[in-house]
Amino acid sequence: MSDISGVKALVFDVFGTCVDWRTSLIDDFTKWSQKRGIKADWTALVDGWRAVYAASMDEVRKNPQNGYVILDVLHRRSLEKLVAQLGIQGLSDADLHHLTTGWHRLHSWPDTNAGLARLKNKYIISPLSNGNVALLTNMAKFAGMPWDLIMSAELFEHYKPDPETYLGAAKLLCLKPEQVMMVAAHNNDLKAARKLGLQTAFVARPTEYGPHQKYDFEAKDNWEIVAKDFGGIADRMGC
Amino acid sequence: MSDISGVKALVFDVFGTCVDWRTSLIDDFTKWSQKRGIKADWTALVDGWRAVYAASMDEVRKNPQNGYVILDVLHRRSLEKLVAQLGIQGLSDADLHHLTTGWHRLHSWPDTNAGLARLKNKYIISPLSNGNVALLTNMAKFAGMPWDLIMSAELFEHYKPDPETYLGAAKLLCLKPEQVMMVAAHNNDLKAARKLGLQTAFVARPTEYGPHQKYDFEAKDNWEIVAKDFGGIADRMGC
Repeated sequence: MSDISGVKALVFDVFGTCVDWRTSLIDDFTKWSQKRGIKADWTALVDGWRAVYAASMDEVRKNPQNGYVILDVLHRRSLEKLVAQLGIQGLSDADLHHLTTGWHRLHSWPDTNAGLARLKNKYIISPLSNGNVALLTNMAKFAGMPWDLIMSAELFEHYKPDPETYLGAAKLLCLKPEQVMMVAAHNNDLKAARKLGLQTAFVARPTEYGPHQKYDFEAKDNWEIVAKDFGGIADRMGC
Repeated sequence: MSDISGVKALVFDVFGTCVDWRTSLIDDFTKWSQKRGIKADWTALVDGWRAVYAASMDEVRKNPQNGYVILDVLHRRSLEKLVAQLGIQGLSDADLHHLTTGWHRLHSWPDTNAGLARLKNKYIISPLSNGNVALLTNMAKFAGMPWDLIMSAELFEHYKPDPETYLGAAKLLCLKPEQVMMVAAHNNDLKAARKLGLQTAFVARPTEYGPHQKYDFEAKDNWEIVAKDFGGIADRMGC
């Protein structure tokens, strides 16, 4: 573990770490479809959508010659396949857009916004997410997350865990990697960040995947901070 | 003039438009130098520094083969020349760093923060400045400007008025140019933005350059909004 007294900025994974994407999407789509008279197993759609998330980004990561593709576009492509697979009928182009931008309308975990507000008093706070800039900006306004700035994989044209994203964030802030702390509910995100010299903080989100959660119930390494929620991180950071 | 009812985001020039760089820097350096026992004509330094601002960026704009250089670095290079020209003695490397980061410690005009807070309730608000990301982030925290995100020429590796900066901002927000309104106290910034399809709002800052102000006392074209301050822009935008 490193000395964290020099930390100037905390950067946050968002999906799962800051927001409860699964419950938010299922609730949003269920209410919306009831008004629209569309029937579907939205839980299956949402779980299926997230199940192909990593693979959709890996395709971009492994084929840089094809150019960077933002997450909104990857989400839309995956959605169209899933809608066909699940046999969901009657969705217009506008409906598919509404579902895709469901990822812009995610709710924070109960401790997120208050913890961020405390940390913001003393540190720069920013997402460092694979979500695109517009997605993260809209989500912050919807959910009330008080970011100082929005940092996204899109700015670096590299999805996490590519090193360019973590190092790019430090560079944009004119900070050394050890002055930046990555906060995530995912051990692999922290592993990639630590390898590049960033500080690390883990918070468990054991219900992120609902009944399908298979890992990340606990810290798998001696991360600089292991806390039960964002309030615990603020406590440790002296806020 | 265009119909502004479709605007989703307002992007702001910062130096001069949002903050009073001249008074802020002169006051900051005067107080600091009194404690440090350094004598200099800080007004001459600040006016001289700003006088070479455009030329320092033009050199980057006209020589893309040399790579993009952030404003903090341009400011430092210009400062070193000016310190020699003005014969200011006794400045250490840390002192030069303190002076350079004076541009991170600028105060808002009296109407700025309240106007931004009103606009933020209904629109995305962001700087679109030639200042680098770290500079703008630090300044926002120092001055209390409540941005949703930080957009800087640095993200596009093009200083305004290069088109890449204005169009890059719209693209990052997943908006069309006409859904974005550029706010500036400088007619030439708005002229460049309008040419690319952005909406435009002018606010006069007649004391920006102190006794040396030569232009931008008034709107020089039929910008979509001409207001006396940010409160006037919020009024016109229905906030």
